[in-house]
Amino acid sequence: MRLLLISNSTNAGEAYLDHPKKQIKNFLGEIPISALFVPYAGVSISFDDYELRVKERFNEISHDIISIHHFSDPVKAVESAKAIIVGGGNTFRLLKLIQDYKLIEPIRERVFSGTPYIGWSAGANVACPTISTTNDMPIVQPESFEAFNLIPFQINPHFLDANPEGHAGETREMRIEEYIELNRNTFVVGLREGTMFRVVKSKIELIGPRNARIFKYGQPPKELKPGDNFQFMIN
Amino acid sequence: MRLLLISNSTNAGEAYLDHPKKQIKNFLGEIPISALFVPYAGVSISFDDYELRVKERFNEISHDIISIHHFSDPVKAVESAKAIIVGGGNTFRLLKLIQDYKLIEPIRERVFSGTPYIGWSAGANVACPTISTTNDMPIVQPESFEAFNLIPFQINPHFLDANPEGHAGETREMRIEEYIELNRNTFVVGLREGTMFRVVKSKIELIGPRNARIFKYGQPPKELKPGDNFQFMIN
Repeated sequence: MRLLLISNSTNAGEAYLDHPKKQIKNFLGEIPISALFVPYAGVSISFDDYELRVKERFNEISHDIISIHHFSDPVKAVESAKAIIVGGGNTFRLLKLIQDYKLIEPIRERVFSGTPYIGWSAGANVACPTISTTNDMPIVQPESFEAFNLIPFQINPHFLDANPEGHAGETREMRIEEYIELNRNTFVVGLREGTMFRVVKSKIELIGPRNARIFKYGQPPKELKPGDNFQFMIN
Repeated sequence: MRLLLISNSTNAGEAYLDHPKKQIKNFLGEIPISALFVPYAGVSISFDDYELRVKERFNEISHDIISIHHFSDPVKAVESAKAIIVGGGNTFRLLKLIQDYKLIEPIRERVFSGTPYIGWSAGANVACPTISTTNDMPIVQPESFEAFNLIPFQINPHFLDANPEGHAGETREMRIEEYIELNRNTFVVGLREGTMFRVVKSKIELIGPRNARIFKYGQPPKELKPGDNFQFMIN
């Protein structure tokens, strides 16, 4: 299995997909690949425009993408994909369309057969057992919260520590604490912006300039840094 | 119909339920009432503790509450309720338990028969057609996103204008813009902290120190202040 699960496409003040570009290139390798792109999380952007945006970036690193919305049979497109790229946006919309097109099992099978999977933000969230640790607004209702289940733990992308000053809503940490209260056997990783997980076979590593924050019921949250051992989360 | 739909229980730096206390007293009136309290949104707090917390506040304004979790038959408890109070917490958990206990129709019927309804945060969200404009994490999966549908528009509680500095995730406004893109016939109100809607019969008014921000597909967002006419949203 080969996964690159990225917290966010874009750091504040940087160009689109700039921060993970080098890691995407390392992950896909030197031989040019035309990957299948899943744009379903896009809501305020058309699938054509979303494809173009991502394509430009991938071309800069000698790879290419084609969006799944051009195929009359999305399942067949998955079956012949050389790599699967799932972009960010609204996680509920993304999962709903993946379910509507019956792509959960086909994509899961491909990835377990070794097809590389790259996802950022919502695209990293759907690699988890469920989308229950998304930050997104539930603007549409998927059939179920169950997602690709490529890893046995939950990611909270765009993890951040504080609320804007003077705001009384729950912090992200409080939200995740509520999740583990009701889902006691599952690890949740707060994946801060600019960071990502790389999974190759059964080896997982954190990449980027920030720590990850690990939550599990009954344990105090734990800060782990790049280079630390994350194997306990997938074994 | 009598509704008091409050953005948030507590303003930053203030005591629990302090900001809406006076309005709750005005809304329930001078004659002491023992209201039915729905604590289901509570996750990190026990239902007993949640009840106590709210009870203390209501006692200060000469009213009382009893929590629905003490009744072996929650539907019967609803049928004899003098007022219904729905507290904040996690909206998904709240709606799931309301649905599990089959309370959607019983509460809806009571409220349409004139029983006063007070909800804050998640409790204001479930008064809407759906919970699709909540800010909460989907930590459990309700059967459906459909809620009490007491008003024909959506509330986004704890509405705030900005992200923490340096954070690249979607702003609240972007999230609501995505909602109206996919739900074009529905008004969404960004209800800022410290503010609330009071609905009596078919008259609706905004109360509090801040404007509300109104979103509708195809229209620029609109700022309305207390005293402005909100009737277009319910007629």
